[in-house]
Amino acid sequence: MPRTRRPAPGRGPQPPSALWPPGGRRRNHAVKREAVIRAAAQSFNERGYHNTSLDDIAAALGVTKPTVYYYVDNKEQLLFECFREGLERIRDAFRAVAQQPSSGRERLASVLRGYAEAIASEFGWCMVRAHDQDLSPQMARQIRELKSEIDQGLRRLIREGVEDGSIAPCDTKLTAFALAGALNWIAHWYREGQGMSPAEIGAAFMQVFEQGLRPRG
Amino acid sequence: MPRTRRPAPGRGPQPPSALWPPGGRRRNHAVKREAVIRAAAQSFNERGYHNTSLDDIAAALGVTKPTVYYYVDNKEQLLFECFREGLERIRDAFRAVAQQPSSGRERLASVLRGYAEAIASEFGWCMVRAHDQDLSPQMARQIRELKSEIDQGLRRLIREGVEDGSIAPCDTKLTAFALAGALNWIAHWYREGQGMSPAEIGAAFMQVFEQGLRPRG
Repeated sequence: MPRTRRPAPGRGPQPPSALWPPGGRRRNHAVKREAVIRAAAQSFNERGYHNTSLDDIAAALGVTKPTVYYYVDNKEQLLFECFREGLERIRDAFRAVAQQPSSGRERLASVLRGYAEAIASEFGWCMVRAHDQDLSPQMARQIRELKSEIDQGLRRLIREGVEDGSIAPCDTKLTAFALAGALNWIAHWYREGQGMSPAEIGAAFMQVFEQGLRPRG
Repeated sequence: MPRTRRPAPGRGPQPPSALWPPGGRRRNHAVKREAVIRAAAQSFNERGYHNTSLDDIAAALGVTKPTVYYYVDNKEQLLFECFREGLERIRDAFRAVAQQPSSGRERLASVLRGYAEAIASEFGWCMVRAHDQDLSPQMARQIRELKSEIDQGLRRLIREGVEDGSIAPCDTKLTAFALAGALNWIAHWYREGQGMSPAEIGAAFMQVFEQGLRPRG
């Protein structure tokens, strides 16, 4: 993209925003870019992707639209970055257990807690409810690859748990789909500060999958 | 809405469509309205709600746009009807077991099969992925009420299963959320004609929730 389409941030008449970090643009580029992505996630969450404009996001931050354009190319890229930010947190949860010597079931439980935290974050809505159709083919392909990696990761942990005897034999593919569905649905019902924490929900879901719907006895 | 905004269907130059029922408009009003809603569901599913126009839906049916307007007021109403059509199928599954003398667990299993069939239908995408923000406040409220009824219905069956001893004691609210999430997620991964039928998936999920992730023993 030519440099001329990305003007340096202007100093508009907007009020200062708690979301927007202070300081010069050179020093805080990464921090400010992250603030733009976070504000986009919150706006998409509240109004939906198609009902949110870059003006809305700039207003939430108390900056001008050219300032937003300085950090991202367009609204589509913001959706992509929100997707990626949330998915990266889930990948972090997988990385954290990769070298652990514990059973497959314990590692799966740990991943589910991190997964629940990612979905309950401000990026959860984008990960679950935003549509591939709104992304460029290249971005949609990248997102599909990341999602597939997570699906395969869940299946692998379940399979390893079955192999080490910590999980009863089961259909690993369907079990992974059921787990992912239950967790992803958190984005639809979770409200911050009401009831359980995301990590508690992850742990409780592990219980539901371990003990729920078994005949009493 | 004044009658003048709903012109009688024109006889355009479109090719005949397998989706569009033959015969006069008076005789087949309900059938044709259903065909419009079904075509809308398929188009939303393929392209997303915001990327679908009434022209696309008319073209899929091989009719003119005024014909589509004869059956529905606008695109928003089409989304609402798709929501409602899918949700009604889930309510049917609850109605079917309401008077059955079987255990809570057996009635829940039967509802899950019907739920899976509804989500795997062409209306599943609208139920799961379309956004309340795209509906009028009144429509969104109606949808929320129907969804809440289904959530309460799941909780009630789980509670009744716990009471009659067919389900082990559990957190009914979280278990209902986990079940709904697992089932709703079917809309994201299910492809017709590949692998299991929707009813088989519902039955398999019941197994996952009964036996999955238990330590082998």
